Amino acid sequence: MKEFELINRLTRSLPGNSALVTGPGDDCAVLDLGVSDRLFLFKTDAVVQGVHFSGSDPAEQVGHKALARCLSDVAAMAGTPIAALITLALPSNFDPAYLDKVYSGMDQLARRYDVAIAGGETTTNPERLLISVSVLGCVTRGRQVLRAGAKAGDALFVTGELGGSLAGKHLEFEPRLNEARWLAQNFPIHSMIDLSDGLAGDLPHMLTSSGVGAEVMATAIPISSTARRAAKASGSAKTPLLAALTDGEDFELLFSVPSREAVRLLDAWKQQFPSTRLSCIGKIAATKGIIIRDKHGVRPLTVHGYEHFAKPT
Amino acid sequence: MKEFELINRLTRSLPGNSALVTGPGDDCAVLDLGVSDRLFLFKTDAVVQGVHFSGSDPAEQVGHKALARCLSDVAAMAGTPIAALITLALPSNFDPAYLDKVYSGMDQLARRYDVAIAGGETTTNPERLLISVSVLGCVTRGRQVLRAGAKAGDALFVTGELGGSLAGKHLEFEPRLNEARWLAQNFPIHSMIDLSDGLAGDLPHMLTSSGVGAEVMATAIPISSTARRAAKASGSAKTPLLAALTDGEDFELLFSVPSREAVRLLDAWKQQFPSTRLSCIGKIAATKGIIIRDKHGVRPLTVHGYEHFAKPT
Repeated sequence: MKEFELINRLTRSLPGNSALVTGPGDDCAVLDLGVSDRLFLFKTDAVVQGVHFSGSDPAEQVGHKALARCLSDVAAMAGTPIAALITLALPSNFDPAYLDKVYSGMDQLARRYDVAIAGGETTTNPERLLISVSVLGCVTRGRQVLRAGAKAGDALFVTGELGGSLAGKHLEFEPRLNEARWLAQNFPIHSMIDLSDGLAGDLPHMLTSSGVGAEVMATAIPISSTARRAAKASGSAKTPLLAALTDGEDFELLFSVPSREAVRLLDAWKQQFPSTRLSCIGKIAATKGIIIRDKHGVRPLTVHGYEHFAKPT
Repeated sequence: MKEFELINRLTRSLPGNSALVTGPGDDCAVLDLGVSDRLFLFKTDAVVQGVHFSGSDPAEQVGHKALARCLSDVAAMAGTPIAALITLALPSNFDPAYLDKVYSGMDQLARRYDVAIAGGETTTNPERLLISVSVLGCVTRGRQVLRAGAKAGDALFVTGELGGSLAGKHLEFEPRLNEARWLAQNFPIHSMIDLSDGLAGDLPHMLTSSGVGAEVMATAIPISSTARRAAKASGSAKTPLLAALTDGEDFELLFSVPSREAVRLLDAWKQQFPSTRLSCIGKIAATKGIIIRDKHGVRPLTVHGYEHFAKPT
């Protein structure tokens, strides 16, 4: 059973209440806690040794990644993180000095965005380290950006570069909190998602939530130099385009805006974030499904993103 | 390294911020989110197969326990839970039907206390099921009850009965949310904690936080009939008193109130919760440490509660 099938099955009829504005199925849950000008964001995410990191990865980076993944989800709602809780499920014979460094990596990231590490828990998971992080954040009421909301004719944008993240970026990426807030403050962002499962894996989530389709221009997809190098170095590696579509763990923002805003957005972005690429990679279409356009013409996009149930190492 | 030593080491200098009222070291973190009459509670807790439940335990009860542990921590602050996030870290070859039942157990408990299951995550943990739950709750501003606050001369109370929980109660217990709120609304509760590591394990947390000691009357400790039966059935089992002190997973409330309130409290409790025992088990003392008084006289209490780093099965 694939991850999203299982999630669909388990979340069919969960209990809600008057505080729950947006439940499962978006980057964060949205809660109304009775504050007039703000809504609150609630998110949890876990990294597991042998699945999301290896025992030989630097401990600080493992801690960084564990927290950064949750912050990236807060960014995808155009939110601001407030506090995090950390659960460490520890293997037998864990090394306290290693855990100090894990915490150090989390702490540095938390301080950079004024996030309180409010507590957490330690427990036992004999075979491997698992770090589960929960984050509470907030967003100006009415400014939260959901996955749903993309409209036919919208221009589709992606930040940064895609592909090859597992060579290192997946441990070091900076959650796009500042970029996302700036976008929502300055442009009518219709929909947004952070790319954890690859463009080919996550774009369908946005489109399904919004009840629309998309046309993507292959040549406009910002392929990372890492993915290009990997394709060059090994005949068996994915093509650079396939890597950009499916490698996953990019943690870039994918979003749609009315196409009339596209040029103003590109200009303003270049002023605001001169060292970060922003690419218009296509447009939202009324017809469901994803069409990819390259020099050979158009074809449906059927490749899938990285699935979390992939075999662990 | 023991659990509390590790936690002390990791939480030495965590980042805080202006929203964080109470950080690590209490049953929940307390957050000020700018609501005039309320503070918010933030808590995470995990259960691990082979540590907190066995693969043969009924799935509904496993789900119930996973959520109930977090709700018990909200109860210990006299709070009200609002929303929960559920992380399932799934073993290879998990059974979707089993997970349906885990969710069913959580859902029933959540509905009973109007808690929204706001989302969550599934990931991979090849060797065993791990369920991590995060809860956001609230408490009337000024009514939150911390571990710190016990004062010399306070009467020390415990709800329910202690010991023998692993025979079944640990999978079925009802978090004492209603009892705790009623207590905080009607009595000046100085300090409160929920008993997860046994009276001998958790009372020291309350006392250390409060900078005081306690004198406990052995004959006043409400020993469960399960613990008594286990002691009778097996010569090698703990004595009933030792079981009540150290078995853990009771999830009862331990709290202190000014001694002048003790009689009024016992009377009012009997009216309000006629089917649940409430026992005055001793008093808070100015001298640090715990003294236990039995028919042989007084002696220091040195046994320790269940440690989560115990060998998994």
